[in-house]
Amino acid sequence: MRDMSDKFVVIMAGGKGERFWPQSRLARPKQLLPIVGDKAMITQTVERLPKDIPAENVFVITNIEQRDAVLEVCPQLLPERVIGEPIGRDTAAAVALATLLVKRESPDATFAMLPADAAIHDAENFAKVIDACFAAAATSSVIATVGISPTHPATGYGYIHRGSTQEADKGMPVYSVKRFVEKPDFETAEAYLASGEYLWNAGMFLWSVSTIEGLIREFTPDLYEQVQGIEADLDSGMGLAASMGEHYPKLEKISVDYAILEKAPHVVCLAATFDWDDVGEWTALERHFPQDDSGNTLRGDVFVENAGNNIVCADEGHTISLLGVDDLIVVQTPDATLICKKDQTQNIKTLVKRIGESRPDLM
Amino acid sequence: MRDMSDKFVVIMAGGKGERFWPQSRLARPKQLLPIVGDKAMITQTVERLPKDIPAENVFVITNIEQRDAVLEVCPQLLPERVIGEPIGRDTAAAVALATLLVKRESPDATFAMLPADAAIHDAENFAKVIDACFAAAATSSVIATVGISPTHPATGYGYIHRGSTQEADKGMPVYSVKRFVEKPDFETAEAYLASGEYLWNAGMFLWSVSTIEGLIREFTPDLYEQVQGIEADLDSGMGLAASMGEHYPKLEKISVDYAILEKAPHVVCLAATFDWDDVGEWTALERHFPQDDSGNTLRGDVFVENAGNNIVCADEGHTISLLGVDDLIVVQTPDATLICKKDQTQNIKTLVKRIGESRPDLM
Repeated sequence: MRDMSDKFVVIMAGGKGERFWPQSRLARPKQLLPIVGDKAMITQTVERLPKDIPAENVFVITNIEQRDAVLEVCPQLLPERVIGEPIGRDTAAAVALATLLVKRESPDATFAMLPADAAIHDAENFAKVIDACFAAAATSSVIATVGISPTHPATGYGYIHRGSTQEADKGMPVYSVKRFVEKPDFETAEAYLASGEYLWNAGMFLWSVSTIEGLIREFTPDLYEQVQGIEADLDSGMGLAASMGEHYPKLEKISVDYAILEKAPHVVCLAATFDWDDVGEWTALERHFPQDDSGNTLRGDVFVENAGNNIVCADEGHTISLLGVDDLIVVQTPDATLICKKDQTQNIKTLVKRIGESRPDLM
Repeated sequence: MRDMSDKFVVIMAGGKGERFWPQSRLARPKQLLPIVGDKAMITQTVERLPKDIPAENVFVITNIEQRDAVLEVCPQLLPERVIGEPIGRDTAAAVALATLLVKRESPDATFAMLPADAAIHDAENFAKVIDACFAAAATSSVIATVGISPTHPATGYGYIHRGSTQEADKGMPVYSVKRFVEKPDFETAEAYLASGEYLWNAGMFLWSVSTIEGLIREFTPDLYEQVQGIEADLDSGMGLAASMGEHYPKLEKISVDYAILEKAPHVVCLAATFDWDDVGEWTALERHFPQDDSGNTLRGDVFVENAGNNIVCADEGHTISLLGVDDLIVVQTPDATLICKKDQTQNIKTLVKRIGESRPDLM
C-alpha cells in the first residue's frame, strides 16, 4: 500500500465566465465573484475543503491575469501555490501541470482536481465524499470521480454511466464507471434520468500522482513530453513562470475528459450526498436566493410593479424599476447592463462575443 | 380697433414630467430635457416663436425650483420674465398671473399661452398659424385656439369640436368652436375621427388682455380677487416673488380648460398646418428617431440580439444590451433605470409615486 498520508487539492479556475457578463469580466470572471453566496465562488470552494488538507497542499491553476485577484479573494492561499497560466490550454494541460507540481512536493501523494465555481452548502458531506474518493484513489490505480444524482433531464451537463457497486468505502458505495457521455439532447437526458444509472459529472477527479502520470504518458504523449520539459527547466533552476511561458503555448488544447477520462480503463464513481449546483448561468440565482410573491429574484435596490418571475441584479447605488415585464434577467453594472429573456441564456455567449469585438473594454 | 402692435407670449412650463422618469426629475422635468431633438423642449419652443416677438415680450411661468434651469437652457430669455411659482396651482392660476404681468407691460396687448414641451418641426407654418390667431384675438373678443387634425383615435388628448368657418384670416379658415371635450374613450375617439369635426386640443390659447381679464372676473371671481391682491402689492412697491409667496397658496387649483375655456362664449379655432407632437410619453421617441431593421429605437450605446420594437436610452458611458426581448422601454440614468413594457406606460406615474415615497432622492 502506498503512502496516502499526503493529500493535495488543485483547484481549476480557468473559466472565462462569459455567461455571467456583465458582472463577469476577463479580469474578474465568475469564480472571482460572489454570484451566489456572499463570497467569491473560489473563496467558498477553498473554505469548503476538508479540514485535514493544509493550505500548503492547495494549488490553484488560473489565468495569469487573474492571479492577483485570486490571492485577493483567497488570502489563506500560499502565493507560490497560485499558478497563472500564460495562455489557456484547456483542462488536460492543467492536469498535466498539476501532476508535475504535486509530484515535486510528494511523489506518492494523491490529489483532487476540483472546479472553482460550484455552489455546495453541505461542506460536511462534501468532505466525507471527497475523503472516500481520496481513499479509493490512494489504494488502487483508479480515477475516482463524483456523480450527482440528477433531479431533472438536464441537457447542460455531461453524464457518468455508472455500473455495479464495487465496494463500500467508509460506508459509501463505490460504483464502477461504464463510460462518460457528453451533454445529451433532451430525449436522451430523459432516458438517462429514467434509467437511474446516470449521474451528472461534477468535474471532480481524484487520483494518485503515479496513476494520472501513467495515463498522461499513455494517452497524451506530446503533452507529457512538454511537461517533462518544464520539469527539466525547474531542475536546472529556471523559474516556473518562465518555463511555462516557453512551453505552455506548445501544449495541445484538449479537455481532460476527452483526452484521458473517456479512455481510462479504471474509473470509479461516488454518488454525492451533498447539494450541488454548477451555477452555470444567471437562472441559477433562483435556486439560491428567495423570491418575492410574484416569483421575482431581486438583488439590490429594485422596484417591481405588475412584473413576475424576473431575476434582477442592481449595482450598489443604482435603482432598477420594472413595470409590466416577465421572465427577464436584468444585470446592471457601472458600465454595462444586460436585459435578457430567461429562455435566451444560451445565446449570451454569442452576444458577448459580438460586444467584445467592438467594445473590448467591456470584456 | 384696438392696438394690436403689442404681442406677448407666455410659456407654461409647470409640468412635473413623471411619465419621463427616470430622465425627468422634479428639478429637471421633461421640458428642460432634450427628450426629442438635441435641445431642451422649452429651448426648442422659445426658438420656434415668431420672429417679430422680441425677447422682452416672452414670459415663462415655471416652478420656482426650476427657474434657474430654465434660464440655463434658455439664455435668450430675460431673467425678470421667467417667473417661478412658489407652489403649483394649475393652469387657471398661471393664466390669471400671466394676464396681470402682460397687462402691466401693455394693457392693450394680445398674448399667447403656449405649452413648453410640444415637438413642432415646421416653425414657418407654426408662426403663420400663431400669427393668424394673434390677428383673430386682437380684432374681436374671442379666445383663439389651435386644433390638430387627428391622425388616429387618440384617447390621451382633449378634443375641440369645431363648427362652421367664420372667416378666412390671412388665408386660413377660422372655425367657430362648439365645445371642448375631455379625453374620450376609444369608441368615442373613433367616432370623433370619423366625423371630421374634431381636432386635438394643442393647449395653445391666444386672447387680448381685456378679453381674458373679463373672463377671469366672470368665471373665477376668487382667482380674480387674489390676483388683484398681487397687483396692489406690486403697485405698493412689493416684489413679485414676495407677493406671489403670499397669494399663490390661496389660489384655487383648477385648470383653465375647466374654469374658463369650456364656459367662454366666443371661442374660435384654427387648424394647424404644422406637424405637432405633445411628446406625452416614452413611446413618442419612435416618432422622432429612426428605427433599426427590427423596429428598435436606440439612443446611446446599445447592442441588440434577437430583439425587436424596443425603445432604449442608454446614458453616456454606459452600454445596454438586449437579448431576446420585445416591446420594452429601457431608460437608464446614472442612478436609476426603468424597464417597462410598452403597453404599460400609463402606469409609470403610479410606479414613480411609489418609488418616490421611499426614495425621494430619485425624484
